Amino acid sequence: MARRGRIATTRGTIETPAFMPVGTQATVKTLDPDEVWRTGAQVILANTYHLMLRPGVDLIREAGGLHAFMAWNGPILTDSGGFQVFSLAANAKVREEGVTFASHLDGARWTMTPESVVGLQLGFGSDIMMQLDHVLGLPAERRAIEDATERSARWLERAVTAYEARGGPASRSVLFGIQQGGMDPDLRVRSARQVAEANVAGCAVGGLSVGEPKPVMAEMLELSTPLLPRHKPRYLMGVGSPEDLWHSVARGIDMFDCVLPTRAARNGALYTPDGRISITNARFRSQHTPVDETCDCEACTRFTAAYFHHLFRAREVLGLRLASIHNLRFLARQMETIRTAIESGTFASALSAFDQRYLPIVGRGRAQLPVIEAETRA
Amino acid sequence: MARRGRIATTRGTIETPAFMPVGTQATVKTLDPDEVWRTGAQVILANTYHLMLRPGVDLIREAGGLHAFMAWNGPILTDSGGFQVFSLAANAKVREEGVTFASHLDGARWTMTPESVVGLQLGFGSDIMMQLDHVLGLPAERRAIEDATERSARWLERAVTAYEARGGPASRSVLFGIQQGGMDPDLRVRSARQVAEANVAGCAVGGLSVGEPKPVMAEMLELSTPLLPRHKPRYLMGVGSPEDLWHSVARGIDMFDCVLPTRAARNGALYTPDGRISITNARFRSQHTPVDETCDCEACTRFTAAYFHHLFRAREVLGLRLASIHNLRFLARQMETIRTAIESGTFASALSAFDQRYLPIVGRGRAQLPVIEAETRA
Repeated sequence: MARRGRIATTRGTIETPAFMPVGTQATVKTLDPDEVWRTGAQVILANTYHLMLRPGVDLIREAGGLHAFMAWNGPILTDSGGFQVFSLAANAKVREEGVTFASHLDGARWTMTPESVVGLQLGFGSDIMMQLDHVLGLPAERRAIEDATERSARWLERAVTAYEARGGPASRSVLFGIQQGGMDPDLRVRSARQVAEANVAGCAVGGLSVGEPKPVMAEMLELSTPLLPRHKPRYLMGVGSPEDLWHSVARGIDMFDCVLPTRAARNGALYTPDGRISITNARFRSQHTPVDETCDCEACTRFTAAYFHHLFRAREVLGLRLASIHNLRFLARQMETIRTAIESGTFASALSAFDQRYLPIVGRGRAQLPVIEAETRA
Repeated sequence: MARRGRIATTRGTIETPAFMPVGTQATVKTLDPDEVWRTGAQVILANTYHLMLRPGVDLIREAGGLHAFMAWNGPILTDSGGFQVFSLAANAKVREEGVTFASHLDGARWTMTPESVVGLQLGFGSDIMMQLDHVLGLPAERRAIEDATERSARWLERAVTAYEARGGPASRSVLFGIQQGGMDPDLRVRSARQVAEANVAGCAVGGLSVGEPKPVMAEMLELSTPLLPRHKPRYLMGVGSPEDLWHSVARGIDMFDCVLPTRAARNGALYTPDGRISITNARFRSQHTPVDETCDCEACTRFTAAYFHHLFRAREVLGLRLASIHNLRFLARQMETIRTAIESGTFASALSAFDQRYLPIVGRGRAQLPVIEAETRA
């Protein structure tokens, strides 16, 4: 199922499979946009819910759009805010019209509708917009999941209508639909068909990587991905661990985003070809060689593991930056490896080589790691 | 008294007057060393007390010295730790031999002597070393100030002897003495003469900018600076506000360091030609032009005041970085202006122009600024 693709946007081409770093609040945390670009990132994510609340769409429009505001010249995908409304905001109340909720910042009451969310993303100047979806926390009753999934499908139709009314492709933005369905095979399949039939540019898979066992996520992907149109990009939302990227590409996914690589970095958890390590571990104290000898990132080519270790022990901000650069570059290189392997027809053996070498947590690092929250959409 | 100089080190020439950014723990807070260099910094400071405790001199020596460890290729001046022992550590006990104290990190007991401090700085590979001095908190009785000042003079002689025993200039490091004397005119003069007579490469002025009124600092400089040898650099420790830089250059100072510009930056206080502003002030919310239209820094040339404001409101680390880059570049440009004015014989009028335009705090920013601690040596 692994496939090699290319997404053309007015701000440049995205070679897929691709990982998209997350810049929730119009900044990829701790990093300068030029640094993000130099990690090999082709497209970044920003978040409609967060940016609507602060600094607000009017301010971003005045600034000339999100790209100008944050000085990122590549493509930007904006998530709709559906996930945040149901996870971060308070007192979300869903009606057919839309959802009302209280801002997590100041408690102010806001409303989002499928139409308003398209308007917001057009206001940001987003290259790829996501529909508003109805996201449920799990576990939930099948009936509730079905209700939310069907509502998401109706909201997708309204989003498409709103998008077309605002110019459709002439807006220079495209719209993606989001598949839901919880961990219920029937609902996943039904939702996948609904998104597949919609007049959208791409198909996202939502509601996975929310704490379910990995075989369940794999099953959901295997059931639903084959139902999606071959010529449209498939975007698995909120997935970003190296092992999940490889195994989801193997199930036909083209695009990924996740806060995990940068959040883990800020907790001192760094990716290496052998697995994820904790830089605060005493064994790095006097390692006067890079964290990853094979890494060409701006951190590993200039600083040793001992210096990383010192910065984290001394709680210096530069450590957060160097670790973030390293993890994003690591994932970008994984995706480069994946793309090359697909091109040369050796993806299966490359996946096997990755699995044999990479350990999600290396050695005794686990106990020392700060807790990293289960995290999907930023 | 303003003078234009040049300090040759084995790692490059320092054009003076110069401001030195502070990298206490082997990192200029939030910044990459290449970014620091691109602000126009010619030399940075690091701190013996902090680095001795963490990561330790042995580790830095193993790493190939401080320059290699932190990837800074320009000159490094290391402060001796005298100030920190008496301000940050606990239970400092002074004997003629040296000072014992408890680490602020873990309470472990340490000793510093004039000789050990030279050894530590040689271990770091410092280009410019500072003597261990006996620093007193003010107010203090004249007798206590006299005692500490005389002890500092005796410690300077021992530092010189230790330095010469370790190779002197062949070590590729040079040693500076530190003038003390509190705010007592007689003791300042006596201490200045002692440092002037010592076999050191440069003369530092310590114990000022510790909360005294500006006219008192000016008086102390006017009394003591003329007694220092003309051909040696004069370094005023812990001074870094734009107005203090200008007025201290006017009194014959060549070198400065201070954590203030970077600490103020992290609190959202930014220098502009009109004075210091607070970026969190509501008037910057929708200012879609740079914080300082005349600034050529990597922050102002790419980002607007509105974006800075957003980053600080959203508590994003990138804001701390951009503000730090801006303030360091602002000071570097002030020093460039000062050097050019001295060269062209127009320093007096340039100083007057600065004074007429620059306000230490602009408008209503003061009330909104987080408290910035009175800070001298980092």
